[in-house]
Amino acid sequence: MTSNAAPGRSAGHPFDAAVRLTQVGEGRFGGHTSAEYANMVGPFGGVTAATLLRAVQVDPRCAGDPVALTVNYAGPLAQGPFTVEAEPVRTNRRTQHWALTMLQDDVVAATATAIVGARPETWADTEAVPPSAPSADEVKIADLAGLVPWTDNYEFRFVDGAPDLGTGPHPTSATTLWVRDHPARPLDHPALVALSDVFIPRIMMRRGEYVPSGTVTLTVYFHAGPDLIAAQADRPILATAGSDRLGLGFADQSVRLWTPEGGLLATSHQMVYFK
Amino acid sequence: MTSNAAPGRSAGHPFDAAVRLTQVGEGRFGGHTSAEYANMVGPFGGVTAATLLRAVQVDPRCAGDPVALTVNYAGPLAQGPFTVEAEPVRTNRRTQHWALTMLQDDVVAATATAIVGARPETWADTEAVPPSAPSADEVKIADLAGLVPWTDNYEFRFVDGAPDLGTGPHPTSATTLWVRDHPARPLDHPALVALSDVFIPRIMMRRGEYVPSGTVTLTVYFHAGPDLIAAQADRPILATAGSDRLGLGFADQSVRLWTPEGGLLATSHQMVYFK
Repeated sequence: MTSNAAPGRSAGHPFDAAVRLTQVGEGRFGGHTSAEYANMVGPFGGVTAATLLRAVQVDPRCAGDPVALTVNYAGPLAQGPFTVEAEPVRTNRRTQHWALTMLQDDVVAATATAIVGARPETWADTEAVPPSAPSADEVKIADLAGLVPWTDNYEFRFVDGAPDLGTGPHPTSATTLWVRDHPARPLDHPALVALSDVFIPRIMMRRGEYVPSGTVTLTVYFHAGPDLIAAQADRPILATAGSDRLGLGFADQSVRLWTPEGGLLATSHQMVYFK
Repeated sequence: MTSNAAPGRSAGHPFDAAVRLTQVGEGRFGGHTSAEYANMVGPFGGVTAATLLRAVQVDPRCAGDPVALTVNYAGPLAQGPFTVEAEPVRTNRRTQHWALTMLQDDVVAATATAIVGARPETWADTEAVPPSAPSADEVKIADLAGLVPWTDNYEFRFVDGAPDLGTGPHPTSATTLWVRDHPARPLDHPALVALSDVFIPRIMMRRGEYVPSGTVTLTVYFHAGPDLIAAQADRPILATAGSDRLGLGFADQSVRLWTPEGGLLATSHQMVYFK
């Protein structure tokens, strides 16, 4: 039974194994891509981004909860080991700024910046409006088996805008779905990062066919504090994606992640290269 | 007449003087903050961001047009000289990734990442819808004199959601306005970056009063190619801003910049610290 286990893999959730880092020096961490989160080329970008946030969180110098993360996908990451360099470039009273680099064979695969800080209770309001959707229980779990390995680690329930490639062009790029880790896993900030990247490139939605494309930069803004994340636990998240503009080889893509009660967990934006 | 001119200041537009950089080594540039773009504390963040993009553009290694820029405001910038370090961390066939640092007295004031690349004609569509607004000519230019120095360098024509501080809470943070450089100046990518940051923090809009606050991270996605930018020339841009969520000491803020004909020039997102 255990002979197939990857080296260093615990009995925990595959996501925890995928984002696992071992400190090898001050601000220096070793990790290994996960075959379970493989994409068409290299690993699922959401897990790469989650791993970079994880580096900040496990660094003993980390002083605060996540505020914002930007990850730039500089080049393909091969299956295998990688190194993350993390530097707290400035620590203020309220925020701490990090610069990160992910390297493979001394070549930069990704860069990132992250901001952590105090998240005190303040005046608050949510202006964005959650999409209307039936409860997760009422929506069938999509069968995406065989598409790419990483999708097996999520439970997708499409409410609107399922990616029916091969059915021709769609008039909009809007998708609404319920999503959670599979098997279910209590939510945390790295998982939130990965969940913000589960949507296929909007150019494929629009064209209704496979288009060579990939995220070049992803930004996540964290709105949830520890209480909302704990309350969300391992329940499905209501997520929406859409694009403002596709053209000149790039398309933007904006995502909102909601609790079933209408709490905004995170918003995310990315630019996607396409052919 | 010329005795009051700042050293090195040409007769050009104040914006060009504010973002001017002198190369002092490979990937190393010297600049100086502009008193004309001063904010309450330090310079207007939009000009800081524009200066970082400018560093990429003037570096002889730059290979492409702007795709995306993320600037992190790590600490206050004092009036005076600063240094920008710019490194092309990876150059691919279609994209080039840059890492940047702005330093003052060897202390990190800002970090940034930028992506430039080829912007070929491709399949294109704009899904975002421009706001309905009277033409710029029909909207009165707002008198913001004395607020902070930098606003004198822009012409603001508020269509909706003018920042009437002191009038009490507003139900939404939405603002629509026509804006351009003052004096008028032909549009370019650095100007677009600065223009995406001309909105006051949405927390002040909502509260209807001054609230200590400031951008911690700003991301700009460039949708316009050279043709759209040339066609826009020095005409007013129709701009919208709004927030998805304000809470736990931070608020996001999303901006869209439109040509009068409904061309989407750029979209921008930021996280703003507030008390």
